[in-house]
Amino acid sequence: MKLMLGLCSALLLLFLTGSCSAQKPHRCRTPPLLSGSLSVSAREGQDWAFAKYRYDAFGQRIRLWEIGQFQSRSFHADMLFLFQEGVVYTINYKNQTCQKNPLHTAFHPSEIPHNASLLSQVILGGSSAPGEGLLVNTWTGDVPETGGKYLATVTEFGCLPVSTLYYTAESGWIVTTYFNAVKGVEDPEQFFPPHFCTDVETEDETLNFFSAFL
Amino acid sequence: MKLMLGLCSALLLLFLTGSCSAQKPHRCRTPPLLSGSLSVSAREGQDWAFAKYRYDAFGQRIRLWEIGQFQSRSFHADMLFLFQEGVVYTINYKNQTCQKNPLHTAFHPSEIPHNASLLSQVILGGSSAPGEGLLVNTWTGDVPETGGKYLATVTEFGCLPVSTLYYTAESGWIVTTYFNAVKGVEDPEQFFPPHFCTDVETEDETLNFFSAFL
Repeated sequence: MKLMLGLCSALLLLFLTGSCSAQKPHRCRTPPLLSGSLSVSAREGQDWAFAKYRYDAFGQRIRLWEIGQFQSRSFHADMLFLFQEGVVYTINYKNQTCQKNPLHTAFHPSEIPHNASLLSQVILGGSSAPGEGLLVNTWTGDVPETGGKYLATVTEFGCLPVSTLYYTAESGWIVTTYFNAVKGVEDPEQFFPPHFCTDVETEDETLNFFSAFL
Repeated sequence: MKLMLGLCSALLLLFLTGSCSAQKPHRCRTPPLLSGSLSVSAREGQDWAFAKYRYDAFGQRIRLWEIGQFQSRSFHADMLFLFQEGVVYTINYKNQTCQKNPLHTAFHPSEIPHNASLLSQVILGGSSAPGEGLLVNTWTGDVPETGGKYLATVTEFGCLPVSTLYYTAESGWIVTTYFNAVKGVEDPEQFFPPHFCTDVETEDETLNFFSAFL
């Protein structure tokens, strides 16, 4: 009888644990300090960019170093977005020049929006041995402002971005893949404009965050 | 002096270990028995398929259950490829019907070809905590037969497929993502044709493996 009770308790515990860990994923927010890399491609790979980024949700700051190709022309850029101050710096270390533009985009922390719907939870790769797979959640939703839609995939553990697919009739599919993320920012001075930006006049033209990829 | 020697040995050991683990990835072959899922998309997502697969490189057999959309028409299929026997069965359990076609594709094990070039090694997601990232290698190469090119991404540990991008001028980009892989095949009878396939005559039309996705 004791054995039966013991077995039942063990099974009950198993099912309770199972039901807890089998809970559906929750919408989540990316860690507030993050360093890593990303690649973006559009128009079936004809336009593309590869970027290293530093992300600071506390200070609402993003630094991007990118190379890429847009409309058959290659480009590279070093940009610093300071959302609280409403400015973006385009930095050229080689020539020691700097351009300062107004930034009229509000800072949006990297997160799964509250109205996103869970599409799937899968393991990229496999689960037969450690290190062979990555548990990820894919969320989908609409962007009413643009008539667009998105699929966003983040890690179950840590809520790190893995990929986003964004579609509008105008742009087609824009595919972004995120990799080599590290929590934290090694050098916070990368959010300081360099000394040759200090006395630069602000240009008239307003930029938004997506200017970095266009 | 002893301390200095000890420190030097420790550093030497660190560098030696570092140089070993920093060795470049090797071309590899997928485990011979594998079960999992995949999604394929082409023409900017207008054509797509989602499939569960069972893969047996020993017996040169593949079973596929798939649903999808091709040229705006939805389809579903249950196919069994027996490469050693040179036949493919298209199975319909609901109607208990079966079609048997000659299969003239040679079996190619899932592997990184010997002439592929390493493009990159990255961690999908991140490396700051366990379970938040997946170390993967991306290989690229040409397919002279079709004038196409490919990018194949596999896990560093286990050589499990993660994604392939295949391009020809005719097809555009075909993107395949692999997930939920488990080493082994739970039910080997899934490689047996069902009983209602036994006395079916072989059709004249020859199929190849890619017929499953066209």
